Amino acid sequence: MIRLISFDVWNTLLDINVMVENLVKALSELLGVPENDLMQKILETREEIKKIRKSQSGSPEKALEESQELLARALEVDVEIVKRAVAKATLTVDESILLPGVKETLKELHGKYIITTTGNVMFWPSAYTRLILEKFGLADYITKQFYSDEIKAYKPMREAFLAPLKYFNVSPEEALHIGDTKAEDFEGALKVGMYACWINPEAERVERIHERGFVVKSVKDLLEVLPQI
Amino acid sequence: MIRLISFDVWNTLLDINVMVENLVKALSELLGVPENDLMQKILETREEIKKIRKSQSGSPEKALEESQELLARALEVDVEIVKRAVAKATLTVDESILLPGVKETLKELHGKYIITTTGNVMFWPSAYTRLILEKFGLADYITKQFYSDEIKAYKPMREAFLAPLKYFNVSPEEALHIGDTKAEDFEGALKVGMYACWINPEAERVERIHERGFVVKSVKDLLEVLPQI
Repeated sequence: MIRLISFDVWNTLLDINVMVENLVKALSELLGVPENDLMQKILETREEIKKIRKSQSGSPEKALEESQELLARALEVDVEIVKRAVAKATLTVDESILLPGVKETLKELHGKYIITTTGNVMFWPSAYTRLILEKFGLADYITKQFYSDEIKAYKPMREAFLAPLKYFNVSPEEALHIGDTKAEDFEGALKVGMYACWINPEAERVERIHERGFVVKSVKDLLEVLPQI
Repeated sequence: MIRLISFDVWNTLLDINVMVENLVKALSELLGVPENDLMQKILETREEIKKIRKSQSGSPEKALEESQELLARALEVDVEIVKRAVAKATLTVDESILLPGVKETLKELHGKYIITTTGNVMFWPSAYTRLILEKFGLADYITKQFYSDEIKAYKPMREAFLAPLKYFNVSPEEALHIGDTKAEDFEGALKVGMYACWINPEAERVERIHERGFVVKSVKDLLEVLPQI
């Protein structure tokens, strides 16, 4: 029986494209540089970091610092510009950052399950992700939030998934993690014995692809998956 | 000749009472508890932490985490409530958080000096302080911001004052630090060989009280002090 549902944040609850667009706008204002040039560098740096994480070769304690430095170097600016830009972006994002159906789904699950976020941190600190979840009303439906810069472990590291389970004294088979990155979210959760949902927007329908794993189109499909467990 | 001016943030640039009032309001909403009860506990916990810092006996790496845990314990709540409340407070503070004359003074000094912040972090991460400085237009006049949760050293530790000096290759006697806490700001800066201004709102006038130290009423008095160095 599932007692805890863990949500990845970016591209699961919140639209990372909205955040990155606002980040690009902020950098463009600060640097007086056209937005096109900047978007490319951000996406490239992001891919670079995702590779490092997949192989778990990045330092968990310094992950945020190193990601910001990598981006600063790619943009050829002082890291202070990156810090200012992520603050500006956090100030300017609007409600379009909420992915469709997310609030309604969390409302539905709230009170019936322990609801957590298990999030990796890249160019901005978890404090800004917390602030956005607070600003647009999602934090009300989350029991406790866990982030890599606070717990010093990032998905797919085991500790990232186990920290919430230990906190709430829940065993892996009583927990489900849902997220959009196959290696970080889906495989990482399965490896520690949890149930897992992989969000693939191109999937045609909800499908069981592992003893404990499902592919879904969005978080809304949780309401279809949970009765099957 | 002064090349770098370092500013404490809370009660030097920004009014901490405005932040704490908004924090109390947020806690009150989250807990359904009257505001009066909460203010007392916040102030007591704050005094406790300031004593720990004065004797430099708190761990620099875990300072934010430990301060939030201390407050959570004093309020008898999960630390998640503290994290949510500081996020809410950051969202609700208005322009009254800017202390009088601060923006005009920074504008005046900008471009003539390297301007830094050297801030200790207590109940909320530096990311929120950065966001507030960005939101109300002060970040435009600051060359680079330094905070204890990022540099892993808090005032009055030497490293907290030396980090900006090392970054900009400025020697202590070419730098001035201004802040409102006598031990953390004034004595800490003097000890590493910098000039120092102590903000005492009850001072009657600007006065030299040390070879390298002045007492002032607010940051505006910097414009009176700097020509004397």
